Order: sequence, then structure tokens, then C-alpha cells
Amino acid sequence: MDYWFSEMHTPNIKLGFRIKREIAHATSKFQDIHLFETYDYGKLLVIDGTVQTTTRDEFIYHEMIVHPPMFTHSNPKKILIIGGGDGGAAREVLKHEPREVHVVEIDEKVVEICKKYLPEISSSYNDPRVHLHIENGKEFIRREGNFDVIIVDSTDPVGPAADLFREDFYEDMKKALKKDGVISQQCGTPFYHPEEFSQVKKELEKVFEYVKIYIAYIPTYPSGMWAFAMASDMPIERRRKLNFATKYYNDEIYYSSMSLPNFVKKYCED
Amino acid sequence: MDYWFSEMHTPNIKLGFRIKREIAHATSKFQDIHLFETYDYGKLLVIDGTVQTTTRDEFIYHEMIVHPPMFTHSNPKKILIIGGGDGGAAREVLKHEPREVHVVEIDEKVVEICKKYLPEISSSYNDPRVHLHIENGKEFIRREGNFDVIIVDSTDPVGPAADLFREDFYEDMKKALKKDGVISQQCGTPFYHPEEFSQVKKELEKVFEYVKIYIAYIPTYPSGMWAFAMASDMPIERRRKLNFATKYYNDEIYYSSMSLPNFVKKYCED
Repeated sequence: MDYWFSEMHTPNIKLGFRIKREIAHATSKFQDIHLFETYDYGKLLVIDGTVQTTTRDEFIYHEMIVHPPMFTHSNPKKILIIGGGDGGAAREVLKHEPREVHVVEIDEKVVEICKKYLPEISSSYNDPRVHLHIENGKEFIRREGNFDVIIVDSTDPVGPAADLFREDFYEDMKKALKKDGVISQQCGTPFYHPEEFSQVKKELEKVFEYVKIYIAYIPTYPSGMWAFAMASDMPIERRRKLNFATKYYNDEIYYSSMSLPNFVKKYCED
Repeated sequence: MDYWFSEMHTPNIKLGFRIKREIAHATSKFQDIHLFETYDYGKLLVIDGTVQTTTRDEFIYHEMIVHPPMFTHSNPKKILIIGGGDGGAAREVLKHEPREVHVVEIDEKVVEICKKYLPEISSSYNDPRVHLHIENGKEFIRREGNFDVIIVDSTDPVGPAADLFREDFYEDMKKALKKDGVISQQCGTPFYHPEEFSQVKKELEKVFEYVKIYIAYIPTYPSGMWAFAMASDMPIERRRKLNFATKYYNDEIYYSSMSLPNFVKKYCED
């Protein structure tokens, strides 16, 4: 049987995955969640028709949303992850030997499915340092604080998570950070959504003294070029060296990922 | 009407483009050539079912196959492009003010279609310094020589161009180069074809003293991560600064494109 899932990158571009079977399907009060087994990419988590993660290439996304901000901080001990219900960002954060990691995921169903069917990614939940909070991240950071690093592992700035890319949310994040704190945030693809992408940088710059955009190759995300932002009131530089095994990130990539093609630089400056 | 062209990246992964119309179609003695007008990527050239170039993202491929080797050479005057029948590599080479550029394309039909329907890319043929040779590149380099830079802009190492990725071809290239000559070659995606990719590096290293792999983001190519190789008997370093407008390449990208993710490094070392 020829059974495909295709993500529409735009109304006119789609990436199709041949599917072996559907592993799980749930409709939560927030969204529609599918987990597929694919031929080429292992397990594929899809939310509202959008690829969230695959077991073959998730290492790139999770390493790159976590290690640049974590290596920017000299001693990150208390970490907050907003979103990241699959547990992948927490898994990478644990490699830095933190004291506590808080994952704030709005949708319990995502966590349930990932715990049950994606242990490769979600096993971090078994670590006693990882604390899961099922709640809205915006409300959580108004109440909690003293974080060294905050990682915003949400859906894209063009979708329902648009609130997480605005000045007032960044103000709340800043209050929830220690003085030398660092944040990172995935901010979509500059190739397909240049306006949203450059807006993120502008909004961050209103709140933080230092903002850097960096990029990584993610084969299953639209255009394959994915952007992240780091922000801090301390200069953004690598303060520690890599001291564990990785599959994508390395010490040179810390800086080379911030070396942007001219067309991307232009969107950052406009 | 819903009219799509999809490239099969593997038998289980495909990238689909919604098509406005077919601009041209020809079957040459070598291959099947289609030119489409798409909704999102402008014109799309497809050969034997494989995306060759689109007017929206061709700048990345053509800048990155040309500028790194050209800026490695201190004074490149005589340039050879093997393949590259669309004229895009020649267009970028001309920005370096060379004395002569030779394009050796095996398939006259590709040149015909590009000259007629893709002037954005093929207009370089109107420049008197550009000399077109319709012939097999392997035979051409056994006869001609004294090149400063040779650019191998062929199809992939897994297809009919596999001969252009082997030691004997590299030996012939070396003879056709001046002593301080530099070559570049597109060598496919390390993500989907790690064996072929690492084989290219090994073969080049048998012939040239210095070999560097570098990568670029190409949204319409499989995985979005595309690899190139540079090789020379001179150390590979940037000898000149960028002195014209570009959309992707810049002086930092010269080096950052050689900063490889760990999983790609691994394929280079195996």
C-alpha cells in the first residue's frame, strides 16, 4: 500500500514521507497529534499537519536549540524549557549537569504520547532533576524565576505560538532570568517567512542588550534552513568547551552557525 | 487545476512543487529535460526527474560552487566549467573579471532550453569571454590545459556522472590545472548519500595535497544540506576579499561553510 503524509510547507510546496503505519493519534483540546512510523526517518511526530520531530533528524534541532545558549552561560544550573513536551531539549540540557530542569508544556497529550512511544526522545522525564509542568508557559514565567537559561522550544512564530515571540513575553522572560542569564528560541525559516523572522530579532532587541541569530540544517523542516535566536544582557560568546559526545554541535559550529548568508543578514537588518 | 511535480529524494521521501505550466520539454540523446513555471520557485529545470535549478534559489548553488575556489586563487584568469550548461556558474565566474571561461556541456539541448527560456541564468553566454564547447568534459580536459580554476558542475556522484568523481578523472584535472590551480566540485548530500560523499573526499585526497569539504543550504535539493569539495596543491585559504554584490556568499561564509557538523565530519574521516 502506498501511504504518504505530506506537510505543506507553503500552499505550493510539500514534503512527503512514505509511512509504514500510524503508531498513535490523539486530538487534545489544543491540537491534532499523529505519530507515524516512516520508512526513512524513523518515527515522525506531526501536530496539526506540521512535522515536529523525527527520530532520525531530531538530534540537530535539539542540540542546536540547547547547546549554544548552554555553552554561552559559564555555569548553567537552573534551566527552563517552554514547550519541548517531547523531552528532547531536556535530554540535551541534562548533558550539562544542571541542578534542575523545568519543562512547561501546555498539552498533556503530547507528553503522554511521547512518553509512551518516543522513549528515544522522552526518557529525560525519568531523571529526577527534570520537573514537568502542564501549563501555559507565559503564566509560568510570571510566577517563577532565577533561571540561568530559558529555552523556548515552541511551534513557529506564524502559528498559535505567536504570543511567545512578542516584546511583553520577552520582558517576562528577562524578569525570570538571573542577570547573566541566556535565552534561546527557535524562530522558523528565514527562507519562507522572512518578515516573521526579522520581527523576532527586532522584538528581542527591545528587551535584551545582545541578540544573535544562528542557523542549522534540518532536513525535515521547511527549506532545510532553520533559525534560532540567542539573547542575553551579557555578550554572547562561548564560555565553555564541549565536553560530551554530540552528533551535530561542536565548538566551531558555535560561531559558524552565526555566520549568516547575505540574504538572511539583510532580513536581520531591515 | 492541481498540477504537481515531485522529485523523489529517496523512494520514500519526495518534495513537491505546484506547477503553473510546462514551459518546455525535450528529450535529448542523453536525458529527459523539463522546464516548469512554479508558483513558489519561479522557473524549475528538471532533468530525468531531478531538480537542477530554480530561479528562486539557484543563486545559492551557483555562488557556492564558484566563489570559494575563485577566492582561494590569488588571480584566476582562465577558468573551466565542466557541466554547468545552464550558464549560472559562468555568470558568477564573470564577476571575478577572468580573461576566458570555458563551459563544457555534454548536452546541447540543455543549453538550447536555458538560452531560450532561462536568460536570468544563461545570459553569461552573451559575454565574449565565455566559450561554449558541446562535448564530454573528460575528453576536453585531456586535450586542454593551463587552467587556474576548474569547476565541476555536474549531476550527482550516484548518477550517470559517477565517472567525474573518480581518481583517473582527478589525475586528468590536475594535469589540466596550473601549479597553483584550484578545483571545486558539487558532491551531493552527505545526509542521504554518506558513502558516495566520503568516497569523493578519499579519491580527491589521492591526487591533491589539500582537500576541503564545505556545505551550503539549498532548499530545493534533497535534505537541504549540500556539499562541495575544493582541492588544490596549495593550502586552501581565502586569498582575496569579496568585492562585488552577492546574495549568499560572504567573507565569513568562506570559512564557516567548512565548519562541518560532527556527523558529516565523521563521514569525511571514515
